[in-house]
Amino acid sequence: MASEISVDVAIIGAGGGGYPAAFFLDKSGFQVLMIDPIGNLGGNCLAEGCVPSKAVREASLVRAQAKKYSFFGLSGSVPSVDWKAILTYKDNVQTTRYTLHREEINNSSIKFYKGIGKIVDERKIEMITDNDHFYVFFKYLIIATGSCPKYLSIPGSHLAVSSHDLFKLSASVPFPSNPIIIGGGYIGIELASMLENLGAKPVILEFTDNLVSGLDRELSLFLAHRLKTRVQIEFGAKVECIKKEKEKFEVNYLKNNQHYSIESDLVIMAVGRECVSPEGIEKLGYATAKPLPVTNTLQLFDFPHIYAPGDVNGKSMLFHSAVLQSRVAAHNIAAGGQPLSRMDWKSVPYAVFTEPEIAGVGLTEEEALHLYGHNIEVVKYDYAVDSRAEILGETEGFIKLIFDGENKRLLGAHIAGIEASQLIAPLALAVRQRLDAEALAHVAFPHPMISEGINKAARTFSP
Amino acid sequence: MASEISVDVAIIGAGGGGYPAAFFLDKSGFQVLMIDPIGNLGGNCLAEGCVPSKAVREASLVRAQAKKYSFFGLSGSVPSVDWKAILTYKDNVQTTRYTLHREEINNSSIKFYKGIGKIVDERKIEMITDNDHFYVFFKYLIIATGSCPKYLSIPGSHLAVSSHDLFKLSASVPFPSNPIIIGGGYIGIELASMLENLGAKPVILEFTDNLVSGLDRELSLFLAHRLKTRVQIEFGAKVECIKKEKEKFEVNYLKNNQHYSIESDLVIMAVGRECVSPEGIEKLGYATAKPLPVTNTLQLFDFPHIYAPGDVNGKSMLFHSAVLQSRVAAHNIAAGGQPLSRMDWKSVPYAVFTEPEIAGVGLTEEEALHLYGHNIEVVKYDYAVDSRAEILGETEGFIKLIFDGENKRLLGAHIAGIEASQLIAPLALAVRQRLDAEALAHVAFPHPMISEGINKAARTFSP
Amino acid sequence: MASEISVDVAIIGAGGGGYPAAFFLDKSGFQVLMIDPIGNLGGNCLAEGCVPSKAVREASLVRAQAKKYSFFGLSGSVPSVDWKAILTYKDNVQTTRYTLHREEINNSSIKFYKGIGKIVDERKIEMITDNDHFYVFFKYLIIATGSCPKYLSIPGSHLAVSSHDLFKLSASVPFPSNPIIIGGGYIGIELASMLENLGAKPVILEFTDNLVSGLDRELSLFLAHRLKTRVQIEFGAKVECIKKEKEKFEVNYLKNNQHYSIESDLVIMAVGRECVSPEGIEKLGYATAKPLPVTNTLQLFDFPHIYAPGDVNGKSMLFHSAVLQSRVAAHNIAAGGQPLSRMDWKSVPYAVFTEPEIAGVGLTEEEALHLYGHNIEVVKYDYAVDSRAEILGETEGFIKLIFDGENKRLLGAHIAGIEASQLIAPLALAVRQRLDAEALAHVAFPHPMISEGINKAARTFSP
Amino acid sequence: MASEISVDVAIIGAGGGGYPAAFFLDKSGFQVLMIDPIGNLGGNCLAEGCVPSKAVREASLVRAQAKKYSFFGLSGSVPSVDWKAILTYKDNVQTTRYTLHREEINNSSIKFYKGIGKIVDERKIEMITDNDHFYVFFKYLIIATGSCPKYLSIPGSHLAVSSHDLFKLSASVPFPSNPIIIGGGYIGIELASMLENLGAKPVILEFTDNLVSGLDRELSLFLAHRLKTRVQIEFGAKVECIKKEKEKFEVNYLKNNQHYSIESDLVIMAVGRECVSPEGIEKLGYATAKPLPVTNTLQLFDFPHIYAPGDVNGKSMLFHSAVLQSRVAAHNIAAGGQPLSRMDWKSVPYAVFTEPEIAGVGLTEEEALHLYGHNIEVVKYDYAVDSRAEILGETEGFIKLIFDGENKRLLGAHIAGIEASQLIAPLALAVRQRLDAEALAHVAFPHPMISEGINKAARTFSP
Repeated sequence: MASEISVDVAIIGAGGGGYPAAFFLDKSGFQVLMIDPIGNLGGNCLAEGCVPSKAVREASLVRAQAKKYSFFGLSGSVPSVDWKAILTYKDNVQTTRYTLHREEINNSSIKFYKGIGKIVDERKIEMITDNDHFYVFFKYLIIATGSCPKYLSIPGSHLAVSSHDLFKLSASVPFPSNPIIIGGGYIGIELASMLENLGAKPVILEFTDNLVSGLDRELSLFLAHRLKTRVQIEFGAKVECIKKEKEKFEVNYLKNNQHYSIESDLVIMAVGRECVSPEGIEKLGYATAKPLPVTNTLQLFDFPHIYAPGDVNGKSMLFHSAVLQSRVAAHNIAAGGQPLSRMDWKSVPYAVFTEPEIAGVGLTEEEALHLYGHNIEVVKYDYAVDSRAEILGETEGFIKLIFDGENKRLLGAHIAGIEASQLIAPLALAVRQRLDAEALAHVAFPHPMISEGINKAARTFSP
Repeated sequence: MASEISVDVAIIGAGGGGYPAAFFLDKSGFQVLMIDPIGNLGGNCLAEGCVPSKAVREASLVRAQAKKYSFFGLSGSVPSVDWKAILTYKDNVQTTRYTLHREEINNSSIKFYKGIGKIVDERKIEMITDNDHFYVFFKYLIIATGSCPKYLSIPGSHLAVSSHDLFKLSASVPFPSNPIIIGGGYIGIELASMLENLGAKPVILEFTDNLVSGLDRELSLFLAHRLKTRVQIEFGAKVECIKKEKEKFEVNYLKNNQHYSIESDLVIMAVGRECVSPEGIEKLGYATAKPLPVTNTLQLFDFPHIYAPGDVNGKSMLFHSAVLQSRVAAHNIAAGGQPLSRMDWKSVPYAVFTEPEIAGVGLTEEEALHLYGHNIEVVKYDYAVDSRAEILGETEGFIKLIFDGENKRLLGAHIAGIEASQLIAPLALAVRQRLDAEALAHVAFPHPMISEGINKAARTFSP
Repeated sequence: MASEISVDVAIIGAGGGGYPAAFFLDKSGFQVLMIDPIGNLGGNCLAEGCVPSKAVREASLVRAQAKKYSFFGLSGSVPSVDWKAILTYKDNVQTTRYTLHREEINNSSIKFYKGIGKIVDERKIEMITDNDHFYVFFKYLIIATGSCPKYLSIPGSHLAVSSHDLFKLSASVPFPSNPIIIGGGYIGIELASMLENLGAKPVILEFTDNLVSGLDRELSLFLAHRLKTRVQIEFGAKVECIKKEKEKFEVNYLKNNQHYSIESDLVIMAVGRECVSPEGIEKLGYATAKPLPVTNTLQLFDFPHIYAPGDVNGKSMLFHSAVLQSRVAAHNIAAGGQPLSRMDWKSVPYAVFTEPEIAGVGLTEEEALHLYGHNIEVVKYDYAVDSRAEILGETEGFIKLIFDGENKRLLGAHIAGIEASQLIAPLALAVRQRLDAEALAHVAFPHPMISEGINKAARTFSP
Repeated sequence: MASEISVDVAIIGAGGGGYPAAFFLDKSGFQVLMIDPIGNLGGNCLAEGCVPSKAVREASLVRAQAKKYSFFGLSGSVPSVDWKAILTYKDNVQTTRYTLHREEINNSSIKFYKGIGKIVDERKIEMITDNDHFYVFFKYLIIATGSCPKYLSIPGSHLAVSSHDLFKLSASVPFPSNPIIIGGGYIGIELASMLENLGAKPVILEFTDNLVSGLDRELSLFLAHRLKTRVQIEFGAKVECIKKEKEKFEVNYLKNNQHYSIESDLVIMAVGRECVSPEGIEKLGYATAKPLPVTNTLQLFDFPHIYAPGDVNGKSMLFHSAVLQSRVAAHNIAAGGQPLSRMDWKSVPYAVFTEPEIAGVGLTEEEALHLYGHNIEVVKYDYAVDSRAEILGETEGFIKLIFDGENKRLLGAHIAGIEASQLIAPLALAVRQRLDAEALAHVAFPHPMISEGINKAARTFSP
């Protein structure tokens, strides 16, 4: 018969939603038990997501820049791609981080297991490791099981690879010459952009009529406009099946009531991510693979002693958001469920690492119009007038700031263009702090950096 | 006899300290007259400073990155440098900006002159253009004459070139193979770093024992430590004279009571910048080439109707600071001298565009200790644990945050390492808004960007 | 023929909307001309509004307190009322303030006239003083003509007195024994409360079913509940006519389809205030006695060089709001119409000086529900648990805080009970600064003061 | 042998420093044991301090106001004082609050004892109740034993009564006709003011040359100036002994090297309060009756698991401060000592309930000058120009705001005059939030309330 133990806090999942809470609560004096199938920290982000994909992307950017030598007064040739070497570089990044994380675990009192946490009831989970299983009673449970790539339910779906296959440790997917990417969400377009930079000719098949659903419409259009010069994008394309013949794949899709078929050496499934439910979630009355409904204190509505930070609640599927959610959950657990911290969902920024980069925070123009009627103000700073953009020869892009019309508080900020992922930081802080145009106008960001554009844009409403 | 006119506001200098006020006051309904020897906007920053130097630097960075191809799994060779092409690229950047500025002037009602504004008395200046001169009576005067490179008073000083000679439009200084740079201030080390990236072997002769006086000491040491691997730096070197023999220069200096002599194909004078006084400043009782004493409303202490924003007051010699100072001056002039705006000097960030980059805002650790006794808290986020730094292979560096010990308000932030000049933006905003560790801890900057490190550092004091 | 002059700024009305701008612009160096029928500063507020009414009210409160001697362990009798002495006391307050204001005018360069400013066209007004008239051309015009008591269009309406008649200098309305007050707005109920305190038996006839339209519903109900113990209130009473027979007045009204008639020695018309349009307003295309439509920069939508701060725009008919609006207008005029300042309408508090006092700021619960759906949080601090309220023997009352449900930012605060008019100050600041529950929880207001209740209430959401 | 139990948190003292933490931690799921000699909540504040003293004071104010009847146009006589009835009224207030507190305890799971908590060692206390004693092991200890009246070490010291004797439940000290109050601190002068209002002729003997040490000097002088008209104050008076002969007391003191003797029917010792150490404090190495040294997280420097909020640390001996400190301690205990909250000592306001009232927050002018050199700005709003002060006939007083000279952030605010204790609330919030003059200028406090004066004063620096 399986043994039983009791802990203060059990945590299923050691990704961004899980481990920050684990460390905080461990330091708070709670007995913390955490289990994760990877057996280390970082979750999908490190195993197959942001970190390895950004490594490959960085290699692709280095290569892309060589195409611009003559712009800068240099002469030389574009470097050649060694795909295996790139994957090794990527693996090294991952391995180094796993080593750092291992030390963090070792320096704590957290009981950490590699394995599966299965919900038995609202007070008990079953822990299943490689060679054991036992029951754990808890006062508080944190479900931080994250998300995984979604697959279309079509014939041949299994023939496609996902970001998981591409970016996991020791991945062996060969470099594709003409990959078909199903899905124009942020993962699909990031892949398209980096593979193109490395020499591939990607095709994106997107079901809707725009890229990255939920994005400020103007960014989405700009992104499509710019990406199209490098990547073939088919909008309104309903993929019907995938077939394989020898080493070739064939993808059939419907567009404008016409059937199309294209061939490729690799099919990538990038139709979004779905929540990963812990085993046994139905014991709490929830459906599998559906977002867990949480308050902004990260508690399940029905079980205030159970917290679900990170992708599993589907509210803000980003690693840095998960980390912040985990902090919120930890504070509130320490206070016995009293609300010491809350998520301010709207102040979490996103970034899409395509070329051009996209980043944003707060309300999109569409959301702002919906909430404020027409009482909003929008200002755009165009990269065409920016010193640094000109120096870099990257003058297509803009910073778009959305203010409420009455008080000129910053409601949202959306950026398309180089360095967007860095420019968003001060704007995320501004949205978080409810700053107004005057606050952004009366600070001086360094010259000649694009962040000056934030000052200039704000000075439109606060001259 | 010279003609006379009256205006509301006369502005001497159309650089960062001058033109923002000109445009604001023009829109406010004031008659504005502005005169500048360049005959266009931007002052030294555009003519010979930040903008052209950053162009050359960017070319140097592109080249430097090629040295790291193999790190990223790429193979290729380092591009060769075409110095003339680089200067043409730089000139193009400047020319484009001058064109933009010309349009801005044309779209205003500002009376703009190319020439010299000379102070006659506290109510009158003389305007001297190429083929005319006349007197201007004003209600308000803005002195925004900026600064220029300083030269040592030593024999042969004139043989050295300055940043002006290197970066002005159509500059013709040839590419140096072993330049001697006199001065380890920010201009000297930026030059050293970019020239080394382009293939030169620079030598820096610095009189004191550290780089960039006034910098947080830890940054200064780190900078020296890193730069030394690429550039020869002689500290405590007192330059005595410069000689020229044929195409060779010889620089003699004293170090540790020993006399040294080194040869070079170019000597660069980079011992700092000094304020440029308008002609006739002695009529107001001020010395030439000395900072004009201003309040934080940018008024001269002795003449409240005369404003002196920008480098000329010596308080914060940075283009973006000058622009903000100009805005402050303009607001207060519009209000007849009533203080509608003030400079918050400590919230203006600086950036030094060496490799590694350096940037900071607020108090240095030394200043904070002086003001707060030992009641401060310092935390450093090490690039060695940063995802993005690891991806980029640039893990030497740190973000240093200085909080007051009592309330954990951010007093200062200093960064050494890649992307410092971008990371400083949210921290400048935080210093400006008097935010505390909790405010920086409870926002989520995007992953995997170095700005996450700000969140992590802040969570040390606000877990 | 009338003479003509030109000024930078003409101001019609020297009340709260007019004079602060006049002084600011005078100091800014603008030529300012201001005209007002009273010939001094302060407008209706001082002539017949807040100031004199609060004097009479204060006398009434002193008397009321005597009724509570035994509660405090004292013994004595209620003082008797000398109505004429009270009016003299009130006159003294007014006279002193007029003297102070006269000095303020004398210390400025403002050209101040007693008389009427009549709009001729969008660039010209006619000034009509006792013995002269002339034309004034202006760059900017400030219309600050305020408001006046509204009268019902019913037979005998002129038989009623208004607050003007009661509170003007040297008013001679005798003390009423059983006044009929038409209107249950803030003026009507303040009058009812103070007259009852002084010994009268007032009757309020209110057309709607609640007091003070626009008030948070809960406050309105509480107010009615409390006032009813001292004052007869007839809701749903449609007044049809007023008659006078000898020294007696008769008021006829309809209620629930029944006709009623009541007698009284005084009828007070208190059905609200209407905007006072300057003469000639139709020249600008606006109707008479209607609010002038303004932006939050206080500019007329159609004439950006004409500003209309204060009651005349009908947005926030309160003296302290007018003063702030005047400041906003002045800043923006100084900047030539560029938006240096804006009104944050929602952060202006109101106070009703009845017993119990009522005060509030920001959104009412009804408004918050409308804007935020049900995603708001409301907490009430009950005076019954308050130390000071208990000490004062005034334990009926509450502080009601309305937070947004997501982030617990303070949206509105409404107070009913003693000292409400003082307690609202920190809450107005909190609404203005967008503070959240944590900010109000983590400050300590003095003990034993009712302001502690704000801390306690906030700690409900930020424990 | 005594029994032993273990708890998570033991709390010695159930006053303002103890009970808020107890309730928070109880709700957080901690086992909390609290012991207090009174056997109910509230500590000295309720038993003998703020609450009962303010009740007696309020009775005194009601009587004082009657002296001003004629000012308001009323006629009547001053009520007579029934000292026993006043004490009964005071007792009623206390009893009601004890009843409320009893319910709060009953609604919690806190183990609450009446008795003494004695420190045995850093992990154990001994609990001594009326008929039992036992040992308690704790993870965290909160020492919140408060303070008590200090007595001079002079002959006959015991003949004097303290505030304890005067204000405790069922106190029996008879009403004094000519009380001698030893000490001109806030307790001494509050007593003097209220007793004078009730008909006594108090004499204050103060050792130093000013009232209330540590107060902004200007307030202290103003206070003395005003109080002297009603109370005899002897500065520089060194009390040497107290004697009693029949029902008369004689107090001998030295002043200017002369010996004086005065007689009285009551001697009140009001020379300050001293920290009450828990029994056994020497086991932790601390001296008895000395402030316990704490961090701003409320931890003892030497024992991070022991917290000492409230008067016992001597940093800010005010009930509302103790409550906030208790909250800070509770947060940090919940987080296992991680710093979730901190005290911002300088933002805690004080109030002195004399006539005139005194209140303040932040730095005094002397402290500000010390910290900022002469770079501060001070502005005073004089009650003489205030509408409400004039209405109330109380035009002596001022609001004094101290800003830093550079950025005009509010450093301190000090008020002398009516309603000071209410006016301080928004200023405490402003100091806490580091608001500047502009923030206080651009909000509108209600008219005609003295809080308008805050707006006006701020507009001096932000017009």
